[in-house]
Amino acid sequence: MSNLQLALQFFFQIALILAFCQIVGRIAEHLGQPQVVAEMIAGVLLGPSLFGFFWPELFAKLFPVDSMKVLYPVSQLGLAAYMFVVGLEFRVDIVRNRWHSAVAVSAAGMIAPFVLGVALGWYFVHHTQLFPEKTSDMEAMIFIGASMCVTAFPMLARIIHFKGLAGTTMGTVALGAGAMDDAAAWCLLAVVLASFDDNVSLAIRNVGGGIGYVVLTLLVIKPLLATRWAKGIETRGRLGDNEFVICLVLMSLGAWFTDAIGLHAVFGAFIMGIAMPRGLVVKSLIERIQPLTVALLLPLFFTFSGLNTQIALLDSAYLWGMTGLVLIAAIAGKGVACWLAARATGVSNREALGIGTLMNARGLMELLIINIGLQRGIISPALFATLVIMAVVTTLMASPIFELLVGRQRIAAEPAPADSGPLAAAPD
Amino acid sequence: MSNLQLALQFFFQIALILAFCQIVGRIAEHLGQPQVVAEMIAGVLLGPSLFGFFWPELFAKLFPVDSMKVLYPVSQLGLAAYMFVVGLEFRVDIVRNRWHSAVAVSAAGMIAPFVLGVALGWYFVHHTQLFPEKTSDMEAMIFIGASMCVTAFPMLARIIHFKGLAGTTMGTVALGAGAMDDAAAWCLLAVVLASFDDNVSLAIRNVGGGIGYVVLTLLVIKPLLATRWAKGIETRGRLGDNEFVICLVLMSLGAWFTDAIGLHAVFGAFIMGIAMPRGLVVKSLIERIQPLTVALLLPLFFTFSGLNTQIALLDSAYLWGMTGLVLIAAIAGKGVACWLAARATGVSNREALGIGTLMNARGLMELLIINIGLQRGIISPALFATLVIMAVVTTLMASPIFELLVGRQRIAAEPAPADSGPLAAAPD
Repeated sequence: MSNLQLALQFFFQIALILAFCQIVGRIAEHLGQPQVVAEMIAGVLLGPSLFGFFWPELFAKLFPVDSMKVLYPVSQLGLAAYMFVVGLEFRVDIVRNRWHSAVAVSAAGMIAPFVLGVALGWYFVHHTQLFPEKTSDMEAMIFIGASMCVTAFPMLARIIHFKGLAGTTMGTVALGAGAMDDAAAWCLLAVVLASFDDNVSLAIRNVGGGIGYVVLTLLVIKPLLATRWAKGIETRGRLGDNEFVICLVLMSLGAWFTDAIGLHAVFGAFIMGIAMPRGLVVKSLIERIQPLTVALLLPLFFTFSGLNTQIALLDSAYLWGMTGLVLIAAIAGKGVACWLAARATGVSNREALGIGTLMNARGLMELLIINIGLQRGIISPALFATLVIMAVVTTLMASPIFELLVGRQRIAAEPAPADSGPLAAAPD
Repeated sequence: MSNLQLALQFFFQIALILAFCQIVGRIAEHLGQPQVVAEMIAGVLLGPSLFGFFWPELFAKLFPVDSMKVLYPVSQLGLAAYMFVVGLEFRVDIVRNRWHSAVAVSAAGMIAPFVLGVALGWYFVHHTQLFPEKTSDMEAMIFIGASMCVTAFPMLARIIHFKGLAGTTMGTVALGAGAMDDAAAWCLLAVVLASFDDNVSLAIRNVGGGIGYVVLTLLVIKPLLATRWAKGIETRGRLGDNEFVICLVLMSLGAWFTDAIGLHAVFGAFIMGIAMPRGLVVKSLIERIQPLTVALLLPLFFTFSGLNTQIALLDSAYLWGMTGLVLIAAIAGKGVACWLAARATGVSNREALGIGTLMNARGLMELLIINIGLQRGIISPALFATLVIMAVVTTLMASPIFELLVGRQRIAAEPAPADSGPLAAAPD
């Protein structure tokens, strides 16, 4: 396709995706599901599982393979910009006060599902045909362990924002723990891929590069920005256009780096958002980046991921049984363990239940990881379908259970400390 | 390249382009040139004329051909979003009061350069080798005529905004006339291409589709939106997220349609911006779309165009003489004629001089049109180089001459009528 044709297709796809997400969103609203879940479902409906299955020719015309090469980078830009905003809104002060809760929830949400996942992996290797021959026992166990550890980090952020929980203990602990668990899951995936390819440097680059990036960003860039640079902006009373562009450059570099080391762009952008000086800078950045990102770019990401997921049919009672097993392990390992960990560190029962429910949603991150597993031949299509069902069910159950357990009343945000400046605008 | 590689490349290119535009922008500021001109120059410097010429291997690594297929659609999205904002800021009320000025300036800025361009085209065909054999007399004359008619519409909009002229008679008349002249130039180009391809339907689709789009947008969509829809939003006092998305869908559809009929996406987005209900809707749309578009997406467009322009060397005194001839015709035909037309319809001399200077800049639209001419074999590389020089010189001279003639004092904006609501935020 020529550049002109790609641009034409892109404009049309934007209009189509945004309009379709609106329609699905209205239906989802009646079912108590947030817009972001509607966007994921819209992608699955538009993709090869439904629209592409029944109208393959029209699908090929509207979403030709070439156009995916435009949609993917743009959707990644949208995701990175959004995770940057999530980092900007991240209440470092709450995490500091609730450090033991965040670490406990994160550890529980990592260890319990990983152990259950490893056990399931062992069972699947030895008693089923769900893994291909060439996947070793160790790889199978770590892969299922990793895919159990995943949290729907971007979706978690979106739901927390949607429900106005961005400044609450519940929201902050869930976000912090979710980020750590997801980063750990990506590192585990890197270990599996490194073992699969017999290439240890992959895992070292991933884990070492990730730690190096966090250290550089939070211990070097953050203090550098917080000193003279941010003070000058506070004095002038306005984030200048050039200064805004510098922040965007840092965001892009962060996303690029963590993508390049195989850890996914979301972490680079999120950590860079945390590194931005609180106060006027953060406030202006949120005001300028959030609206267009959330309305225009982010739906492209959530829909794109759905567009590329084929929900294979599970055609035997046996496979449905296995799916049930996976689901029970996933919910017990993640939701229940996180709830207990939050309770054990002094979080109120209502908030701890909320944290468990939110952490339990697997969302798109799960889809990203198991898609890699399928493409690389680590898991079989049947196991892939099982894990897709687990991802979708844990995501769909989050909102209704959250409403039921935690209720619709607003949870009070913790007051912002004097030096942290005003928080984000009203939730959208 | 795989999707992952494309996304990686894209993040890095964004960081590189934004950072380089900042550096060039600081230098341009000292030379009295606005940021938008710096972005165009930055693209030319990063492109095959300088960076790609001296470091071809590094250039191929940083800007591989595949990555252009991502950069182009995104830059078009940025341009469309920006022209949508320009349409939102467009003061229909001023144009209504100054209708005769806008039409006179537009007509003068179309007829005078077109006549001079046709004469030049005739001369070039009969006395030089600047046109290839297969270009007919008529095609050559219309092509040069069209390329003389062009105004740097997006750049004009950016400079007007940059100088805080968005609500002034000068800014509005120049924008309105510039839009009409540019649309006419694209129609003329369509006529040349239709004649060149022996395909009349191309020209009909272009001219007829364009008129149909303007009628549909301004006489059907605009009144439809202005009635119950906008009143409901004014009553609620907030443009909802869903309503914002509907506006983005309309913008994308407009850009898509005018692109599809060969008239360029900028017109569709601009006209759709004009069609949006004035007041709260326009104010919210500008606030939400403008910051990220201007800081992140628009530089990609201005730089991309430069990236794809090869400034060939003019290697003979004769060619430099021809370039001088083209320049004189371009400036006399456009700048002088528009100034006189504005004076003749009662605009003050200072504002008329400003209008002439702004209209005279050819900017990127000229580069777009002559690139098409070169790719299709309508003009020779030597004539292309001549026209590139004309485009760059008329663009570079705009800001300094504008400062000299019109001065640095702020020109007062016309008061907004009661029903048009607040205007855009402070100029950036």
